[in-house]
Amino acid sequence: MTPPSPADLVASFIAHLERKDLDAACALVSDTCEYDNVPIGKVFGPEGIRQILEGFVAGFGRIEWQVLHQLSTDDGDGSGTVMNERIDRFERLAPGGGWLELPVAGLFIVQRGRITLWRDYFDQGTLMQQMAAT
Amino acid sequence: MTPPSPADLVASFIAHLERKDLDAACALVSDTCEYDNVPIGKVFGPEGIRQILEGFVAGFGRIEWQVLHQLSTDDGDGSGTVMNERIDRFERLAPGGGWLELPVAGLFIVQRGRITLWRDYFDQGTLMQQMAAT
Repeated sequence: MTPPSPADLVASFIAHLERKDLDAACALVSDTCEYDNVPIGKVFGPEGIRQILEGFVAGFGRIEWQVLHQLSTDDGDGSGTVMNERIDRFERLAPGGGWLELPVAGLFIVQRGRITLWRDYFDQGTLMQQMAAT
Repeated sequence: MTPPSPADLVASFIAHLERKDLDAACALVSDTCEYDNVPIGKVFGPEGIRQILEGFVAGFGRIEWQVLHQLSTDDGDGSGTVMNERIDRFERLAPGGGWLELPVAGLFIVQRGRITLWRDYFDQGTLMQQMAAT
C-alpha cells in the first residue's frame, strides 16, 4: 500500500482536528512526536499532544484551519517536510462570540506516514488577546 | 538569461542582509512588495522595507540568519513560493552583549525575479524581551 504523501497526511491531520476527532489525529503522530508551540513550549507524543488539543476542542465550537499556502517535499516512502501558512479559527461558545483567529506558520516533519515534528510559529500576545475576548 | 530560482533569490536576499547591503537586498523586491511582520504590521515597497531593515542594520553588529528548513516551488520563469524556518541572529553592540536570536517562519512570494510578498511569523514578546536585553 502506498503511504500518503506528507502533504496529504498533514491535510488529513488538520481535517481530523476540524472534526474534533483527536483519536484519528493522534494516530498520525509518532510515539515521540515533538509538538512545539514556539513561544509557549513543547510537548511530546500522542498523549502530550492530545492534552493540548483537548483544551481547544472542549473550549470552542467549530474549528476551521484555513491553509493560505502550503509547500511540501515527498520522498516517496511517506516521508517529507511540509510547511504551511494558516489562519487557525475557533468558534467562541458564547452566543454572538464570533471566532478566535490566529495567524500561524507551521512546520511538519513526516517520517514513514507519521508526523515526528510539528512546530507552529505565532504571536503569543495575539493568542492571549483573542483568548481574553472569548 | 535564466532568472534565478525563487529559492536562490531568497538565499541571495538573505545573504545581502547579512552583509548589510540594503541596496542589493532592496533591488530584489518589487515596487509594490508587501513586507508583513505579522504581529507588528506591514510596510510596502523598497523604501518602506529599507526603513525597517535599516534599524536592525544600524543597531547591531553582525547579522546571521540561520535557515533551519526551506521549501520552495519554481515555476521556471523566476516565479514561485518559498517558505523557511529561521533563527534570525543579530549581534549586540555592547561588549559581551551576545546575540539577539529570534525564531521566525517566513513566506516569500516571488514573481519574475522579484519578491512581491514577504511575511514573517514570530512572537513579538520574544523580540521585545530580546531587544530590552540589548
